[in-house]
This record gives sequence, C-alpha cells and structure tokens, in this order.
Amino acid sequence: MRIAVIGGLAAGPAAAAEAKREAPEAEVVLYEASPHVSVGACEMPYFVADRLDGKPDLIVLTPEELARSRGIDVFVRHRVTHLDARAGRLTVEATAYNATREERFDRFILATGARARSLGVPGESASGVFTLRSLLDARGLKRWLETEPVRHVVVVGGGYVGLEVAEAMRDRGLRATILDPKGRVLAKSLAPEVAGQLDRAVHASGVAVRAEKPTEILTGNDGRVEAVRTDRGEIIGCQAVVVAVGVEPRTELAEAAGVTLGKTGAIAVDEHMRTNLRNVWACGDVVEVPRIIDGAKIHWPLAPTGRRTARVAARNAVSARTRTSGGDVFRGVTPSVAVKAFGIEAAAAGFSEEQAQEAGFEPLAVQIRHTTRTKVFPGSKPIDVRLIVDRARGRILGGQIVAAEYAAQRANVLVALIRYGATARDLAEDVDLIYNPPLAPAVDPLKIAASAALGKLA
Amino acid sequence: MRIAVIGGLAAGPAAAAEAKREAPEAEVVLYEASPHVSVGACEMPYFVADRLDGKPDLIVLTPEELARSRGIDVFVRHRVTHLDARAGRLTVEATAYNATREERFDRFILATGARARSLGVPGESASGVFTLRSLLDARGLKRWLETEPVRHVVVVGGGYVGLEVAEAMRDRGLRATILDPKGRVLAKSLAPEVAGQLDRAVHASGVAVRAEKPTEILTGNDGRVEAVRTDRGEIIGCQAVVVAVGVEPRTELAEAAGVTLGKTGAIAVDEHMRTNLRNVWACGDVVEVPRIIDGAKIHWPLAPTGRRTARVAARNAVSARTRTSGGDVFRGVTPSVAVKAFGIEAAAAGFSEEQAQEAGFEPLAVQIRHTTRTKVFPGSKPIDVRLIVDRARGRILGGQIVAAEYAAQRANVLVALIRYGATARDLAEDVDLIYNPPLAPAVDPLKIAASAALGKLA
Repeated sequence: MRIAVIGGLAAGPAAAAEAKREAPEAEVVLYEASPHVSVGACEMPYFVADRLDGKPDLIVLTPEELARSRGIDVFVRHRVTHLDARAGRLTVEATAYNATREERFDRFILATGARARSLGVPGESASGVFTLRSLLDARGLKRWLETEPVRHVVVVGGGYVGLEVAEAMRDRGLRATILDPKGRVLAKSLAPEVAGQLDRAVHASGVAVRAEKPTEILTGNDGRVEAVRTDRGEIIGCQAVVVAVGVEPRTELAEAAGVTLGKTGAIAVDEHMRTNLRNVWACGDVVEVPRIIDGAKIHWPLAPTGRRTARVAARNAVSARTRTSGGDVFRGVTPSVAVKAFGIEAAAAGFSEEQAQEAGFEPLAVQIRHTTRTKVFPGSKPIDVRLIVDRARGRILGGQIVAAEYAAQRANVLVALIRYGATARDLAEDVDLIYNPPLAPAVDPLKIAASAALGKLA
Repeated sequence: MRIAVIGGLAAGPAAAAEAKREAPEAEVVLYEASPHVSVGACEMPYFVADRLDGKPDLIVLTPEELARSRGIDVFVRHRVTHLDARAGRLTVEATAYNATREERFDRFILATGARARSLGVPGESASGVFTLRSLLDARGLKRWLETEPVRHVVVVGGGYVGLEVAEAMRDRGLRATILDPKGRVLAKSLAPEVAGQLDRAVHASGVAVRAEKPTEILTGNDGRVEAVRTDRGEIIGCQAVVVAVGVEPRTELAEAAGVTLGKTGAIAVDEHMRTNLRNVWACGDVVEVPRIIDGAKIHWPLAPTGRRTARVAARNAVSARTRTSGGDVFRGVTPSVAVKAFGIEAAAAGFSEEQAQEAGFEPLAVQIRHTTRTKVFPGSKPIDVRLIVDRARGRILGGQIVAAEYAAQRANVLVALIRYGATARDLAEDVDLIYNPPLAPAVDPLKIAASAALGKLA
C-alpha cells in the first residue's frame, strides 16, 4: 500500500508518522513545497523576540530526522501540482529543478494547511512587510529587525498573534502600534468588559492600539516600507509592518481534484476525516471541524486540532474503513485559546456571547472579579471571570478569564465542563475545585461566576 | 419558625446565613462554644509564619458582624450540652458563667465540626505542644514561637498541614523535623514515584523527614517540651511540637441525641443532609459525604465541602422537604487537594491507586514527565503527572501532579473530568487543552499521561 501525505509543516508529519505506525508495511511518502517540515509555528513571536532558550531554530525535526525516525519518505521542495484521486495519481514538481513527475498512490492525505491572509492594499509587497506563518517569514522578520534601522513597527491585527508580535517588538526595544478595527486586542475572544487588565497592561507597555484599517503601505525610493496610510487618512510612519489578520485554508489542490469544501471555505470531511473522494482524507488547518457544543462546522486552525485530526485521518486512511463500519472518529473541538502577554494571562473557552447567539442559544453573561489566591496571601492578584451560560437550561457555553496568574489553566477547567455539558449549578455546587491559600481563594472564581449566573437565572 | 445552628466556625455560619436568606421570617440562632465564629482555618500555617498581608487575624467575620450582616442571633462562648430533638429542645451553657438554660426550636442543624486528633502519648499536654485547628491554637503557637527560645520544632504528621507548618517554621528561620510513619510528606495523596520534586525541595530546605512515630514527649522541670522520644528509641531535642495527624468529627452531642453515625465515625446523612432524626440536619466536618466516583461514604473535612453541605442542609432545614419530595441535593465530592510548599505545587484529584483498589476498581497507573511550558520557553519547568485509570473501561479515576508551576490548576481539570466520567481516550484525543508557549507545551502533560495510559491499556 502506498500513501501520499501532501503538506509537511505540522499535521502532515503527524499523519505520516501515525500512518506508518499503524501500517508499518505501507509506503508512506510526504511532500512539502517549502524547504522545511515540522516547524513550531506558535513559538515564532518568541523566536523573533529572541526570547527562547538555547537559540532554537523552530525546526522540531529536520526532513532527514523525520524520514529516519518515522520511516517515511520525505520530499521537501516538492510541490504537488495535480491530484487525480480516482486514477490514484498525483503530479509533483521538484521546485528547485522545475522538473515534474507522476506518482501512483492508493490513498491520499491532504495536509496543505493554511496561509496568512493578506490585506489586499497597495504596497503590501514592499520590503519590510511581513506575515508570520512560515519559518521563512519568521527568519525574514527577525533578520529585518536585526539589520535595518527599525524604530517603529505597525502590527495589523489585534488577535493573539498580533498581540504576541507587539510584545516581541517591545522585547526588542522597539515602538509598536497595533491597528485593529475594534481598537483593542483579542476583540474576538474577550468581551470588552473582561479585557480591562489586559488593555491596561498593553497600554502601560507603550503599545498603541488604534481603531483603524490600513488602506495603503507607503514605500521610499528604495522600496522599503516608510509608513502606513489608514482609513482615517492618517499616516503612521514605520520601518516594518507585520500583517496578522488571520489565515485561510490552502484548498487549491483539493478543489481542482474535485474535493468538496464546506461553508467555511475549508475542506469538508466526515467524522473519519474523509473527504467526498473515497481514497482522500484531509487534516490540519485545511479542514473544517465540528464544534462539540452545537455540532456546527468551524475553521479552527490551531496546532492541537491539527495533530488530533492528523491522527484520525491517518488511522482511517490506513484501514480505509467506510463511514458506516466504525473506525477512528474525530468528535470535534471545544474552542479554547490562551495568551500571556505583558504579564497578563488571558484565556477564552467555548462560545463568546456573539457566537452563542449566532449558534441559536439565548446566552446570559455574568462577570465577577475575585482574587487569584486567598486575598491576604502575598502575591494575590485580581482575576476577572466572564461566564456565558444558556438561559434555557443554565448550560455553560463559554468563559473568559483574565489575570496576572492562574487564569489560563482555569480555561482548561471550563473546556472540560463545556465538553461534558455541565451547568452553572453543577459548577457552583458540585465541582470540587481546589482551595489552598497560595493557589486559590476559598471559593474558586469560576464557582463564584457560576453562582452569579445561577442568581441571574433564578 | 425557630432554627438552631450548633457550631460556628465554618459550616455553621454558612448554614445560618443560608437559612436566613431562604426564610427571612425564620428566627435563626447560632451557638458556638469558643469565643470566635467564622475563622479561616486554611490560612493558619501562613498566619503562624507571619506571611500574610495586612496582619490579618484569621477572623473572617466577628460575631457582631455575622449577626448584623446576616440577621442571625449569634451566641459565642455558648456550648450546647444536650439536644432533645423529638421534644424540640436543647440545653445551652454560657461557659463564662457556668449557667445553663433550655431553648425550644423547630429544627436543628448540627455543625459541630472536627477536632484535631491527638497522639495519645505521655507528655502530650506539655507546654509547647500544639495542634493547629482553632484560632486559639494558631495564636498560641505563634506567641510561643515569638516569646520562647525556640530553635527546633518537631512536626508530627507529614500531611498537607504538617508540610505547611514545616514550611512556616522555615519561614521563621527555625529548624524543623517532620515525623511521619511513611518517612515522606503527602504520603496519602502522592505515590512515591511522583513525589520526587517535592521531596527534593523539602530536603533542600533543610527540613528532615523521619519515618518514626513519637512515643513520648519529654519535658523539663518547668513543664516545657524538651524532646520527643520515638519508636526507634531516638530522642529528638526540640522546643516546640506541632501535632498534625488529622482530625476526627465532634459527634458527642449528636450521639447522645440519638443521631446515627456512619462507618467513618462521622454523622450519617441523606442527600438532603438530613440525619436519621426528622428535624435534625448536619453539615461540615462532622458529617460523612458520598464520593461521586463510586458513591462510597467518606469523611472529607475540607472547607469547600463544609460550605456546600451547609447550604444544602440549610435549604432543606428551612423547607423541611422529605427524602421523597425533592429539595436541594448534595451529590457528593470528588476529592482533591493541593499544596504549595518550598516552591513546589503538588496536587491530587480523585483516587490514589490504593483507594481505587479498595473501592473495587482494577487501577492502572501511568506516570510521565514533561514541561510546564514549551521546552524552549524561558522559565519552563519539569512537571510530573501520574494518572490512575480503570483497566476495565479506561475511566479516569485519579491523578497526581507535581511541578514548580501550573500543577494545582491542572488537578481542577482532572476533577471536572473525573466528575463527568471521562476516559483516558477522551482526555488524550478529545479534550482541547490550551497550548501557548509561555503557558503550556504543545501537548498538555495531562494529555500525554492519558496517551500513555491508552498505550498500556491496549
């Protein structure tokens, strides 16, 4: 049996390794268009900031290590340009040589990932304008900051990558300005009411956050970025621009091969991660996945989801079980994100109020402030918790937590509660969260928020 | 309606306040034998260490504040000496005056709590021998350390109180020795394999842990403690002894009144916290409670359980619903404990292997070491996770976590998973724990442990 895995940055290597583990007799071939496989994307802002220990290069495994340790045939600088699944055939181009050849496979796993969204404004290809998605992006930005006379960096997008990049710029001693339509960071994850501690920390760091959109990137005679023009007609001088406005799935190969996309624009798969083509599976940032709370399909391009979908895709590709005959199942995601920037942890799990409403729930949001430890214990800090519950049954739909400590891990508690359908009453009265003065107050902030929700529901 | 609440340290005030909230027209009377109500017991080691901010006195509410803010009649220095539930009558003694009187009530809530276990060895009543249960205990120990020429303190018992007391002694610049039959700390909560980081931190702090039992406390001519003799015939010189070998429920009043005790020796109650007597409810450290995993009754005298059982007892006492007619229900506890001492967080949730075996499960334990953050992120620390699952179905039964950071909150995640019957497979493949380099590694240590368990189950 020959299995082709197309795409090698994160989900691809995981899928290839799992396929080989499950079927040692199979021939597993991995194609990756870039020179790298197995890149640690989430560490990039810290790499750019020069904050990581031991000067790592973000490469988890080299192509040779991946091939040797997992028994996979790895081809980097090889782009798959055409897929004929019915004929069991793909065309691959050795990009350094401009040479193509055809290869036959029994099964295909698409792991082509996602690319950084572009702004679509004039000047975006100027020198000094970066996204932060590939290893080349990260190295390019770092080199630019090290070699060019950069004083001020404009970061377009206030999501978690934008926030982390802004912190990285401050770590490097540079000024940074975030442009985000909402005029604040993490606007999609955090309600404005709960974001205060983070907003103040960003402000105190000297990072400006402006509710503007770039309309043009201005360059000097040497082609280097000089300024960003915004929709308010402002010109913001800068020597580098980082565009962090999200990602979109790389679906061109799949579409041309007749693979069906879902409403989100990502590849539609069944619970076995199989596409509409019987010998094609897909995984990672190129697929859409069900949200466990309501079953809706979402595009959730995060590393843990990539790894989990990769394993399921690989196991089913190997066994080729049909939809009705069992096989490994991917049940979906409980969306959760966490950031630590400027000394503040911010985390969100499940639905925001807007998302809950869009999904057809009638959400009730409550917010409380408490302390991270017993109030009189040294080092105790304020913690803000916003809990979103369903008015009909009190089910916990989501939560947002912001504090200088002990915030992010609390989002994991919410993930577990949401995953199992817990109600505000369960959390308030029935879930034994730890209490110890240096670690948590007598009644956990999550339980206090749940009690507040109960009070409002009554 | 007149409701008597007997006992005022933690569960009692909570029950009285809840009763008044639910039935503002009721007369709620609280009796407490000591001079204090509403005392923060868990802060005592830190109070003794002089580590708390703002020099607090551990009194959450004075009797006057409790009475005024909650609308309760509060009698401190009043000991209930006799209860005739059928006649709706109790006898109460004003201890300062040696005067007794009878009072009539419709309903009774027993919240008489627990007392520190004693060693039962000669010399235990010597000056300089303390337990750490009441405010008087804590104040007495602190004054002793401040006024006597203390250099070395023997702590009997290596549970979490003993460990915290030993740390408090180090904080005060004193030498400390822990005597525990197992020769290590937290032996009931942590398997020896997972406790390494904590053991090393205790050792590095200079606290000795000896596998010995005290057989006699030796005193000088002035009646002050001079040394402890152990079952190995050793004599350990010291100027103070703290006995921290657990607590036992104060059931004398209840027993004399005809209230049935359970196998644990604590008061037996139904899910409404009602005793066998139709107008007597009980709550807090004097009752036994069901363990959610298997329904077994355990004595679990921790503050959060006290507060929760108090609320349920009070609501049902007010409404006097019968066992069959609904009413508020206490579903039980998922045992969890957490400590931070000598810079290490240690936490345990659910069953240990021994407890799982005793409860009739066939447990499988796996242990992994990973990092608290992405390995290359500065400040990343080793974290040890031991996961206990049921061999039959892979259900998560318990877990133990030890690390310098991000350990205790992870026990809360296990609490939620255990509470809802999650399996190792659910945790490994299906629960989206956060990933962000400063906050957690790419695959959470809990998930790595679950995958290890899956591997062993297969």
